[in-house]
Amino acid sequence: MIRKITELIEKNENRYLEELKEFVRIPSISADPKKSESMIKCAMWVKKQMDVMGMENTEIIETEGHPSVYGEWCRAEGKPTILIYGHYDVQPVDPVELWDSPPFEPTVKNGGLYGRGAVDDKGQILLHMKAVEAHLQAEGKLPINIKFLIEGEEEVGSENLVPLIKDNLEKLQSDLILISDSSMFAKGMPSICYGLRGISYFELRVRGTNGDLHSGSFGGAVINPANALARIITKLKDEKGRILIPGLYDDVLPLSDEERRVFADLPHDDEKYRKMLGAPELFGEEGYSTLERVWARPSLDVNGIISGYTGEGAKTVIPAKASAKISLRLVPNQTPERVEELFRKYIKEITPPSVEVEIESLHGGMPYISPIDNPIFDVVREALKNGFKADSVTIREGGSIPIVTDFKELLKSPVILIGFGLPDENAHAPNEWIDLENYQKGILSMAYLYEGLAER
Amino acid sequence: MIRKITELIEKNENRYLEELKEFVRIPSISADPKKSESMIKCAMWVKKQMDVMGMENTEIIETEGHPSVYGEWCRAEGKPTILIYGHYDVQPVDPVELWDSPPFEPTVKNGGLYGRGAVDDKGQILLHMKAVEAHLQAEGKLPINIKFLIEGEEEVGSENLVPLIKDNLEKLQSDLILISDSSMFAKGMPSICYGLRGISYFELRVRGTNGDLHSGSFGGAVINPANALARIITKLKDEKGRILIPGLYDDVLPLSDEERRVFADLPHDDEKYRKMLGAPELFGEEGYSTLERVWARPSLDVNGIISGYTGEGAKTVIPAKASAKISLRLVPNQTPERVEELFRKYIKEITPPSVEVEIESLHGGMPYISPIDNPIFDVVREALKNGFKADSVTIREGGSIPIVTDFKELLKSPVILIGFGLPDENAHAPNEWIDLENYQKGILSMAYLYEGLAER
Repeated sequence: MIRKITELIEKNENRYLEELKEFVRIPSISADPKKSESMIKCAMWVKKQMDVMGMENTEIIETEGHPSVYGEWCRAEGKPTILIYGHYDVQPVDPVELWDSPPFEPTVKNGGLYGRGAVDDKGQILLHMKAVEAHLQAEGKLPINIKFLIEGEEEVGSENLVPLIKDNLEKLQSDLILISDSSMFAKGMPSICYGLRGISYFELRVRGTNGDLHSGSFGGAVINPANALARIITKLKDEKGRILIPGLYDDVLPLSDEERRVFADLPHDDEKYRKMLGAPELFGEEGYSTLERVWARPSLDVNGIISGYTGEGAKTVIPAKASAKISLRLVPNQTPERVEELFRKYIKEITPPSVEVEIESLHGGMPYISPIDNPIFDVVREALKNGFKADSVTIREGGSIPIVTDFKELLKSPVILIGFGLPDENAHAPNEWIDLENYQKGILSMAYLYEGLAER
Repeated sequence: MIRKITELIEKNENRYLEELKEFVRIPSISADPKKSESMIKCAMWVKKQMDVMGMENTEIIETEGHPSVYGEWCRAEGKPTILIYGHYDVQPVDPVELWDSPPFEPTVKNGGLYGRGAVDDKGQILLHMKAVEAHLQAEGKLPINIKFLIEGEEEVGSENLVPLIKDNLEKLQSDLILISDSSMFAKGMPSICYGLRGISYFELRVRGTNGDLHSGSFGGAVINPANALARIITKLKDEKGRILIPGLYDDVLPLSDEERRVFADLPHDDEKYRKMLGAPELFGEEGYSTLERVWARPSLDVNGIISGYTGEGAKTVIPAKASAKISLRLVPNQTPERVEELFRKYIKEITPPSVEVEIESLHGGMPYISPIDNPIFDVVREALKNGFKADSVTIREGGSIPIVTDFKELLKSPVILIGFGLPDENAHAPNEWIDLENYQKGILSMAYLYEGLAER
């Protein structure tokens, strides 16, 4: 039975690519208010895919923000039900001048498809849809019950997803939630991810004076809000990369010896990693390996900063204000609520009295961890082995999928993360791409997985 | 004789205003490569003014950059010659959204004319030209010899002015150089300025990785160039406002007791000043008054900073690079060359090894000081008293007119600075304006001054 499906998948490789291009071509940037029409167009595109392949009860679910798309096939009586979650929205494209090909003109190069959203998360949604489609085309049915929930606000904090889940608890009920929105450890090494970091994202706005001032006439008499903001930022971490916000590490779950061993066994090479990033040297918290730092330790980064004159040439101005976007990655058992509380308190403490500071919380998401010995992992490993012809590894991921915790808590189902991205595919950066071999093998593995879950 | 001139000046007040509007309307932003046509138009406008009033040998002097305008009236045999310097270029207008009226649509409001360049330096050039014009109209001649040199690159460092002066040493020869490009101490208090600060202006570019990274996947493993730049900036000054660049204060000429007394006698009120600026509190180097800080002590300011995502919403990115414009104001006897050397050395020392830093020097200018007891000051005081009906004060200025030192050195003539701006007229900031009473009284005083210099 599965052979018929896998043959079909092989035969349709080119069409799967063309459909992914179509999907990437839609500039569905959820953060950009000017792109709301594209968001609707993209949601409609996803719904149409589901309709055409034979999913049932498909619908655009309106929210306070961008809509979600739902579809299901639930005729496999007595068989388990899985809910596949993904997002059709993408990150902004700035700095757009750094893209080698336009972000919304998908371009094939060296076995990859380049374009914003190619891997995060359009390619990874579509591979599930194509696996389902292959089953339906080959057999006219699915071996298990499958529901899709594809949202449009993952890149802006998924604020309307929790209300949506709460309003649709019965519809979304499932035995297992499957999410493909993360990375494999490396090419040829299919990966099951059991932990994610959370996030707390803030914007800091510092005001010095009512208006910009001439730096000659006033330089030395007033604080400069850009200098003050730099000082605030500097006090957030020490020179060795440890975060200085008091109490921030209190809730951090230490790594177990087993985890440290599993991480250490992975074929990670700091020097290769450094070269891939093009960094003069790696830099992070003392006492932890790179993988431990990005997977299981909190981090803090300036995501953006702006103040004063940033055009060509020189302008002798003392800016009136300065602002920065600053985010922290959280690990189990930190919570965004507690981190926000600590962050606000500390910023207040370290802000010089000669400026005013305003803190806006832009979004927060819980970290996630599931027991490393979950038995469903074995079924997944088998499917991945069939699809990729390789053994899979157990990993964590530094990124955040805040809704993972929400799913777990609201739907009371286990969540499994199977990522088909690669670490260097530039998610969130210019020249995002997806490896097309992984895309195709992803379709194949997922077709095996649905079969495997039915037999269990 | 002078009565005829002063009556003429009173009669023409409205025309002087209309002509200033015409001048301000030309968007002569020297820093903006897209404004090169406006620069030429503005130079032509200045030349035409000179031609119409009867100046002789007027010409547009081409340079490697924006042109200068020259004109003279040298028929007062045996009388002294003065050279009046000014600049027709203006500062950029960003952030343009903070202007209450468009920067190049001059608008009269509450006795002021609002528009970019109104006071810096178009109004202050034009008042000299109108004073000369009044003499020529009333008498058909001038009591002294007057030369004008109006350049177009003051706001971008006057790089081509020194070669121009060197090429025209004989033409520019004079007994006294007069510059009006600074401020009066306060309304109703005409001021003679005997000292200026210099400037060293740099751009720092910090690079962390080859491209922007996802802050989830990589946060904690690499340095963030925006965090690193913040740390570099923070190390430039201590928490009390003292600059930390080693050796920076070595060449600073200490204030004399007399200067400190003169400054202390001026009617400066810190609380009023703070309120005018809208600052939560004033901030500066310990042990010095506000006037001492801005007139006679070095300062350091971030003029602009940018990195990462600065648009709407949240983007979870580790920027690949970050850059800042940073300038220092220098005081006698610091030099931009020495300061640049110290700055570069120190930045190298404090840059973390995990980023690369590039320093570009955008421009430098010498500080200036002239003996506080110069006898020509008495003639100027008399003229200002006649024009303003008020005693004048002796001050310094925190801003930089780098070419003052060049004039002094190349032309071997004393330089006198008589500013007609007010401290709150927003030079270099949004909503720049000039007080129209000062503009008119400035014309009157300068008409008196030319007369006074002839009698001396």
